[in-house]
Amino acid sequence: MRSPGIGPVTYRQLLARFGSAAAALQAVPDLARRGGGHAPRLWTRDQAEREIAAVDKLGAKYVTLGQGLYPPLLAELEDAPPVLIAKGDLNLLDRQSVAIVGARNASAAACRFARGLAHDLGGEGLVVVSGLARGIDSAAHDGALESGTIAVIAGGIDVFYPPENEERQRSIWERGLVLAEMPPGTEPRARHFPYRNRIIAGLSAGTVVVEAAPRSGSLITARLAAEAGREVMAVPGSPLDPRAQGCNQLIRDGATLIQSSADVAEAIRLPASSVRAERRAFNHGEALNGDDALGVVEQLLGPSPVPVDEIIRLSAASSGAVQMALLELDLAGRLDRHAGGKVSLRPA
Amino acid sequence: MRSPGIGPVTYRQLLARFGSAAAALQAVPDLARRGGGHAPRLWTRDQAEREIAAVDKLGAKYVTLGQGLYPPLLAELEDAPPVLIAKGDLNLLDRQSVAIVGARNASAAACRFARGLAHDLGGEGLVVVSGLARGIDSAAHDGALESGTIAVIAGGIDVFYPPENEERQRSIWERGLVLAEMPPGTEPRARHFPYRNRIIAGLSAGTVVVEAAPRSGSLITARLAAEAGREVMAVPGSPLDPRAQGCNQLIRDGATLIQSSADVAEAIRLPASSVRAERRAFNHGEALNGDDALGVVEQLLGPSPVPVDEIIRLSAASSGAVQMALLELDLAGRLDRHAGGKVSLRPA
Repeated sequence: MRSPGIGPVTYRQLLARFGSAAAALQAVPDLARRGGGHAPRLWTRDQAEREIAAVDKLGAKYVTLGQGLYPPLLAELEDAPPVLIAKGDLNLLDRQSVAIVGARNASAAACRFARGLAHDLGGEGLVVVSGLARGIDSAAHDGALESGTIAVIAGGIDVFYPPENEERQRSIWERGLVLAEMPPGTEPRARHFPYRNRIIAGLSAGTVVVEAAPRSGSLITARLAAEAGREVMAVPGSPLDPRAQGCNQLIRDGATLIQSSADVAEAIRLPASSVRAERRAFNHGEALNGDDALGVVEQLLGPSPVPVDEIIRLSAASSGAVQMALLELDLAGRLDRHAGGKVSLRPA
Repeated sequence: MRSPGIGPVTYRQLLARFGSAAAALQAVPDLARRGGGHAPRLWTRDQAEREIAAVDKLGAKYVTLGQGLYPPLLAELEDAPPVLIAKGDLNLLDRQSVAIVGARNASAAACRFARGLAHDLGGEGLVVVSGLARGIDSAAHDGALESGTIAVIAGGIDVFYPPENEERQRSIWERGLVLAEMPPGTEPRARHFPYRNRIIAGLSAGTVVVEAAPRSGSLITARLAAEAGREVMAVPGSPLDPRAQGCNQLIRDGATLIQSSADVAEAIRLPASSVRAERRAFNHGEALNGDDALGVVEQLLGPSPVPVDEIIRLSAASSGAVQMALLELDLAGRLDRHAGGKVSLRPA
């Protein structure tokens, strides 16, 4: 997983195809060659052992895909993180959870609302997930600190960002749970935040957005929740308040309008979307037909992202054969994977 | 229409059955007897002529169901007012209109929003309909006074209610249009307001609610609009603001969230609901089978309101026969008609 060029989707497909990480590591150079590229530089055993020692020293644990502790809802994501580093109360992973996200520069009233909502959701027995950012995220964690909260952070488990949240992060280590996908010591960079957001959305039965500007990160989390077949919820505001526009637009687009924790509880207890069932069906293997498929798939791909489903339909190849071809292109460094299960050919 | 005990639904059915008001007036006593009651006291020619003279003296006009000027959308209502008294610019009845309604004690911000929305809807070529009440209604009329506004009032065309709106009502006489269902001189009473609300909803392609408390008159107008198959729209607000709860609940129940006049224009230009087509189908006559139907219908009715459609289904009689039986019971003073096309037997 730490080898450059191997993302969560590739990781999962390699393990599904080769049964174990050891077998997959052995097969990667060959697969990459077939895809027409050079083999990725693989992480070494030594590097892995150094990270494991660091995690141990921090009092943190690994939670890995396939392990009993790994949250089943998160495992449903096609790009579920294969490895998470967790510090705090791992029992929180066993309970149903709801994400609360929103603007870093939210109004005081919205922060107060988020804190109260998080507190009340705790009363409903729900764990509150958020991203430990300023504003709404911090308010949500504070409101649910007694009842149970999970902070998913973009950097390493031991990195405090924003710096003023150090005390809050330490409190959640003690009384809640902090999750990080990146190795210890990683300073969060801009590209890490969408990865973090998919974990927030993926862990949760639903995501509530409280005050968000149009085109903000919170709306990305909402979109990821919708793509995962989870409930998207939003708190409305006056059209005269620009900070309410993102949420109002979400509601116009079909998000459930939320005024209270009861509204949230009602929404997430509705029958789950059919998306999950579809995704499970998708994971059932089919016979491979690699040689033919690789050429066809390569021809169908271009620089614009297209849904994998479309490639499968257009190629007239089996889903398994297309996935294998994409895996080979990916390992050859010739594929880009995008949000929403889209792929494109990387310009040479 | 002015005869006691004859409401808009009965009026319309009598005219459909007997072809003219004169023939209907002659038939009423017999029908009432068949229904098991006494004949209603009919309005006299003299009374009618006095009202007509008063309307004329006020510079107002009658607009009657079936006349070319009568707004077609309003005519679609099962309980469309057979007679309206109109003072002002009758051309406004020819243009597509949208209702803006809301709380009398609305916040200053909401009134400002309503005024701006009404102004912008005028810019979209839409006439703004409201109820000339305090608060949101007044703001909506003010915003659309230049571009076109229709005030539907609960009392007589010459009665100013609330009194402080006298100047506003005179302005709308001059530059917009005022409509009244009640005869001149009628002081509005509580029961008149829901009737007024059905005209507001019925005239309009859609109704926008701006700030409304739960269980307020504005929500009744919204319900009437929905029942008429019109677009229901609402302006959201913070859950922390109690005055936003009615609108937020409407949106939860499926109303379109509105932030601007563009949102309204988009909503009402969507294909109309199928309700209208259904209602038209309903009006096609069927063979009468009165004697059998009256007994069956009477047996099916009780003190709790039930939908007429259910009576038709349960009676196994034709729709026309059931309507005729209901008409007879109605004229006999033994039927109550309720919102949503429900009927009940009046306790003896």
